[in-house]
Amino acid sequence: MTNPLPQGATIGILGGGQLGRMLSVAASRLGLKTHIFEPGANPPAGHVADQITTASYDDVAALTGFAATVDVITYEFENIPTSALDTLEALKPIHPNRRALATSQDRLVEKEFLQSLGLNTAPFASVDTLDDLTAAISSVGTPAILKTRRFGYDGKGQARLMTPDDTATAHADMAGAPSLLEGFVDFSHEVSVIAARGQQGDIACFDPGENVHINGILHTTTVPANLSKGQSTDAVLLAARILNELDYVGVMGVELFVTPQGLIVNEFAPRVHNSGHWTQNGCVVDQFEQHIRAVAGWPLNEGKRHSDITMENLIGDDMDRVATLASEPNTALHLYGKDEVKHGRKMGHVNRITG
Amino acid sequence: MTNPLPQGATIGILGGGQLGRMLSVAASRLGLKTHIFEPGANPPAGHVADQITTASYDDVAALTGFAATVDVITYEFENIPTSALDTLEALKPIHPNRRALATSQDRLVEKEFLQSLGLNTAPFASVDTLDDLTAAISSVGTPAILKTRRFGYDGKGQARLMTPDDTATAHADMAGAPSLLEGFVDFSHEVSVIAARGQQGDIACFDPGENVHINGILHTTTVPANLSKGQSTDAVLLAARILNELDYVGVMGVELFVTPQGLIVNEFAPRVHNSGHWTQNGCVVDQFEQHIRAVAGWPLNEGKRHSDITMENLIGDDMDRVATLASEPNTALHLYGKDEVKHGRKMGHVNRITG
Repeated sequence: MTNPLPQGATIGILGGGQLGRMLSVAASRLGLKTHIFEPGANPPAGHVADQITTASYDDVAALTGFAATVDVITYEFENIPTSALDTLEALKPIHPNRRALATSQDRLVEKEFLQSLGLNTAPFASVDTLDDLTAAISSVGTPAILKTRRFGYDGKGQARLMTPDDTATAHADMAGAPSLLEGFVDFSHEVSVIAARGQQGDIACFDPGENVHINGILHTTTVPANLSKGQSTDAVLLAARILNELDYVGVMGVELFVTPQGLIVNEFAPRVHNSGHWTQNGCVVDQFEQHIRAVAGWPLNEGKRHSDITMENLIGDDMDRVATLASEPNTALHLYGKDEVKHGRKMGHVNRITG
Repeated sequence: MTNPLPQGATIGILGGGQLGRMLSVAASRLGLKTHIFEPGANPPAGHVADQITTASYDDVAALTGFAATVDVITYEFENIPTSALDTLEALKPIHPNRRALATSQDRLVEKEFLQSLGLNTAPFASVDTLDDLTAAISSVGTPAILKTRRFGYDGKGQARLMTPDDTATAHADMAGAPSLLEGFVDFSHEVSVIAARGQQGDIACFDPGENVHINGILHTTTVPANLSKGQSTDAVLLAARILNELDYVGVMGVELFVTPQGLIVNEFAPRVHNSGHWTQNGCVVDQFEQHIRAVAGWPLNEGKRHSDITMENLIGDDMDRVATLASEPNTALHLYGKDEVKHGRKMGHVNRITG
């Protein structure tokens, strides 16, 4: 697909959560429709999509039917089963590509990829067995974090080792899953770059945002981030290097630790990213539309910021504050329409214009 | 309904065009769903709505079924058949109310209402017969415009009388429809106020925008408008007076002529308005969300503007410019996903941030 998708074309989105929902809204601004593929009932993205398929990722007939109705396929999460991708890829283009997905799905592969580009990462070692873990602690040291290589998000699938005494407990926590030991990085703060690459290889990055996490879940993103001009430039160039190397099409979130010795790449996500939600009220074209533009073969927007913003996630019982938040000046609500409020569940976010 | 609608509630929208489409998107930001009622197939609003009913406005069963699935009803256009409103109103609340609709549906009733509030209008006279028209020309003078009292939009249903010689032709153009002769107003420019009133009687107005029409269709809206501070205040107060008098709930577009003698009210529309599309990229909460907030019993946003904007409508073949527009910096596209490009048809708009 080299031409931009025309009016009325349909973008297939794997995953029906809040990211799919906001992608669907963005697609509508460009005159494009969306078709959501999601195993769960009443997905948030379904409220604003033209079509929904409710089926599991191993339902080949459903995947085939889905692919037949769409012009291009993208996704809102990186843990899509390989077999589903195999089925879909034979039928329609998928952006971002398989290599980006495969790289980000496995923390070990991701770290090795980043190092191959000459980028700095936390010290790490692969851990499959208890012996591996003992050896890893020798090389990486403690404190450290043991993480499953796959399927971790929002701090899940992780165990901290403050001293080597925690070895057995941490290993047991992984329940035999292939893992990675990561050394602690002494960073002052975390920032992320929301970067986009189009089908012509054009790249546009939004200004880096500064992230604060609580209990392993993103709490706020603030732009502009506390970065020197040089650090901002480094962050953007580094993100661009990742995108180019992967021949990437779409938006990527790249998380970086800021240290006195420079920027260290924590991880990247091959999709729109929670730390990019501020763009909805800080930029003329947000990360969701930027992703749709890339996937649909449209030109990217330059990504310029018109306002300073702090994004705050609304998690679980934070929803009790909605009535108050709705009355705050300079504050935009973005609620996800989820059926049920659960502890730790991302229910929405607010963007506050601060300048 | 005094409490704000909760997450997952459904707003019924009569009409499935671009206004319904953008209302639906706005509802999603508040965690609300929409159900579109529209006689035409493949309505633009349907691409981003949770439910669609395709039925005519005289289909009582369809109207009843629609009402059963929604918590409150609103509309994107003012020419809704009375019988449909009768059916719906017995089942669910409708905002804005019937009086606002009835007043705006009839140019004569509207003008008399505005005059009863002490607001200035163009000189006018009711015209049902050729004799009426002759008498009207004596009182109003020429040049003047003969307009049908009902169902006019975008310059349709209008005939100009440059001199009394045009009487017969103009009268024939109306094809017997009850009409109104309006005298010309010597105005320097047109502005509009997008005003909102909530269920608690709270009012919030966006900054007035300056409108330029081509061939009777809105071409651009620019904010800030060319108005003195006093004129801006007058415009906003005047709009508030209309809303209060009608005990209005929702967003209203009020069109005003600027003259050396002060502001003259042209007309108002009891709905979101084309001249308010600039708010999508100029304000943290746009006119569509403001309308949904009002209709859903939520607090209004103050309506503050963070950027200067020029909105330009994309009409008919303007769609050929989309590829170019997509590459312009500081420019947001809003395309309506309409099936077919037609001459004079509103296909989308762009908002350009100018400061």
